[in-house]
Amino acid sequence: MHEAPIFLPLREQHARLRNGSLSAAQLAEAAADNFARRGEHDHAYLTWNGEAAVKAATATDAVLAGGGDSGPMMGIPISIKDIYAVAGLPTYAGASRRLPERWERPGPMISTLMRQLPSVMGKTHTVEFAFGGLGTNAHWGAPRNPWDPREHRAPGGSSAGAGVSLVSGTAALALGTDTAGSVRVPASMTGVAGLKTTAGRWSTQQIVPLSSTLDTPGLLARSVDDLAFAFAALDGELTLQRSSVPATPYLADLTFGVPEAFFWDDCSPGIAEAIQTAIRQLEAAGARIVTLDLPRTDETFALFQQGGLAAVELAAFLHTELPEMIATLDPNVAARVKAADDMPAWEYVRRRGVIESLCASAAASLAGVDALLTPTVAITPPTLASLEPEGAYPKANMHALRNTVVGNFMGLCALTLPVGKDAAGMPVGLQIMAAPWQDARLLAIGQAIENHLGNSLEILGAPPWER
Amino acid sequence: MHEAPIFLPLREQHARLRNGSLSAAQLAEAAADNFARRGEHDHAYLTWNGEAAVKAATATDAVLAGGGDSGPMMGIPISIKDIYAVAGLPTYAGASRRLPERWERPGPMISTLMRQLPSVMGKTHTVEFAFGGLGTNAHWGAPRNPWDPREHRAPGGSSAGAGVSLVSGTAALALGTDTAGSVRVPASMTGVAGLKTTAGRWSTQQIVPLSSTLDTPGLLARSVDDLAFAFAALDGELTLQRSSVPATPYLADLTFGVPEAFFWDDCSPGIAEAIQTAIRQLEAAGARIVTLDLPRTDETFALFQQGGLAAVELAAFLHTELPEMIATLDPNVAARVKAADDMPAWEYVRRRGVIESLCASAAASLAGVDALLTPTVAITPPTLASLEPEGAYPKANMHALRNTVVGNFMGLCALTLPVGKDAAGMPVGLQIMAAPWQDARLLAIGQAIENHLGNSLEILGAPPWER
Repeated sequence: MHEAPIFLPLREQHARLRNGSLSAAQLAEAAADNFARRGEHDHAYLTWNGEAAVKAATATDAVLAGGGDSGPMMGIPISIKDIYAVAGLPTYAGASRRLPERWERPGPMISTLMRQLPSVMGKTHTVEFAFGGLGTNAHWGAPRNPWDPREHRAPGGSSAGAGVSLVSGTAALALGTDTAGSVRVPASMTGVAGLKTTAGRWSTQQIVPLSSTLDTPGLLARSVDDLAFAFAALDGELTLQRSSVPATPYLADLTFGVPEAFFWDDCSPGIAEAIQTAIRQLEAAGARIVTLDLPRTDETFALFQQGGLAAVELAAFLHTELPEMIATLDPNVAARVKAADDMPAWEYVRRRGVIESLCASAAASLAGVDALLTPTVAITPPTLASLEPEGAYPKANMHALRNTVVGNFMGLCALTLPVGKDAAGMPVGLQIMAAPWQDARLLAIGQAIENHLGNSLEILGAPPWER
Repeated sequence: MHEAPIFLPLREQHARLRNGSLSAAQLAEAAADNFARRGEHDHAYLTWNGEAAVKAATATDAVLAGGGDSGPMMGIPISIKDIYAVAGLPTYAGASRRLPERWERPGPMISTLMRQLPSVMGKTHTVEFAFGGLGTNAHWGAPRNPWDPREHRAPGGSSAGAGVSLVSGTAALALGTDTAGSVRVPASMTGVAGLKTTAGRWSTQQIVPLSSTLDTPGLLARSVDDLAFAFAALDGELTLQRSSVPATPYLADLTFGVPEAFFWDDCSPGIAEAIQTAIRQLEAAGARIVTLDLPRTDETFALFQQGGLAAVELAAFLHTELPEMIATLDPNVAARVKAADDMPAWEYVRRRGVIESLCASAAASLAGVDALLTPTVAITPPTLASLEPEGAYPKANMHALRNTVVGNFMGLCALTLPVGKDAAGMPVGLQIMAAPWQDARLLAIGQAIENHLGNSLEILGAPPWER
């Protein structure tokens, strides 16, 4: 099945759509076939849009046949996290009821993408209001992590269906959002690549907000190269800082910082080992590895455990715009929103100040390296059963987001790509973090690493159902 | 006394310092003479630095004599609101005790200015933590408004000593800050010109914060032309948006919006009349006058009356950095800080969202005009005695700031210049508001208006003690 055209690199899909050896309809039909085969089991989508997508793809093909070209994403099958407003599709944001119509008017990110005429296969499940890192949802259930054919393991969240849609071949690019790790955690847990953009680079307008301060749009794809392709297709219109596409650097020209503390604590068996092996391979290829501990990581994580900014900012959004939804919140979400009610306003202002100073000290400490390397997620994707006992969910949720939230609170951009499997046979992601606004450069560095270590198929093999 | 060199336009001081017909020492000595004569009565300064300034000016003159030029502000006598950190001078920020030493390390604004070698005559009084618009201070007393020789009238605040320092000739440029009107209100009440810069244009680092969101550095001077001179000397280094100095426009090429509602309500006798006369003069000179009511002004003022963002942000600063100072706050400041303790964090987040949307709607509504004209302050400077009865201070304070806070909450830049006197014989300021980042253009517009209406001496005559 991995020979199906939807699994081709995006650059190849792009070229073949234009030389006539592949059609948008073929791609959309392949996605629909994969959905018919595995969609119910995977449970990645809240709203499946396959029929309309195939129809639209046929029209797109007519444009292609006439020499029309609406942009790089033309005819590429995509999935969209159900937290983005998309015209003509309902938005639930993981809540129990459909959100008001104003949340179906697209913002800059979706508008920019849609003008290029991709095939929108559907809207993927999310943790309610994106407030959680495991991918669970009391209203709609959790997508299945495709790498465990027996047990129902967490797909990672909050972009819970995004990674799953890529692995099962119902989309070739997935849109997510990342406030504490919500792109990188599901990417890592499902064995795909994920990009968290620098906060402020791409507009979050018309994305249902979790944290108005820290939300960032992001992308998931089957390779860093695919991410770089999609990033280049969108960034020029979405960011004010125009930048040319940087060339892929030589590993021998790169210096990577690797922390000694924090990120390695309490890793599930096999995770630290897989990352260290990858780092040794990069070093053997000429990359310079230096020890670099980001300052104030413990303080960062403690602030996150206290609710950070998101708990209050989500509470403000709900109180102001959707007060009737507070009573029906997923209990795991409700607990943290409710805790924020007791916080005095000045404490929130203080936290904003702390985050501002964390950003400043992180930017300074990264000055001497090209990027920082860490495990993306410290734990293997937990089984849903293991999350049921009282207190298990909050603990696992914090643990899963610990290594990623550092990038959010410190204002960095970050990338994850699969580099191996842990002792449970689940994918392990390498996190690459870089200074603010270095997104394009970060992707180029990620491509250099991916070129050397191998792509996800080479690293992880085919998913279990194909063996 | 108005022939003394310190009352010359800054451009003329600048030229004469360089052709040898005036020395920095002469300017500093003139300031010191005026301080000796009227300083105690005026009560503009918390820290007088005259002796050191004269000494430094002598050294500056040696540099000038050798052909050295450290920048446009070289040798110009200035006063600095005692809320800016300045090396070698204590910072009180209007509080009862000297602030910790870290508040004596200069930020970008002071560093940029100091490199040009002005003569720092001293640090002027401020309302405690800049939280008030009348200029009163329970710890240090209020400067005297120089335009009433009999009664002690409010000088306006929170930059309470800034305007007074200019009128009495102890400085030729005064640094203030404006969060709700703290530059424009004292400028208007003391008959000088004042500029509130666009928030974010000039750094507020190392200025003791009132509102981390809305604080803006600003300038007071004896004319708009002086403001434009000083602005050009500083802006190039302080802002990221480099802009050439715009030419002074012809009035006949300008369109001014004039609101019908809100800004004219409950004006003290003579204020609205003076502004309307000025507007008619501009119209007679060819300016186009159109009716333009900024949307949502009532909502803006209601939010301000509830404490806006400043009450919480000041509380956060005090709780975090100066908790021991909370117990000794000026009662008029303490009341508003204490009220903020009961506000839930999500309400603060909601308010930030409201202010963001106010900024967007104001920018849109200003699209068709060059600037908006209103009275700067609706009330005549109250006597201190009138503020003593229970409830009198809060009412007068809100009334004084009503017309200016609109510009802060809506993200605008704004200017005031004197255009007449009210029925009590006190100065009346015309407020000119423009779209964000139009600061340089706003000053050029203000110069066109000043050129036509006359400068402050022509408008107001000499201050009472010289008659």
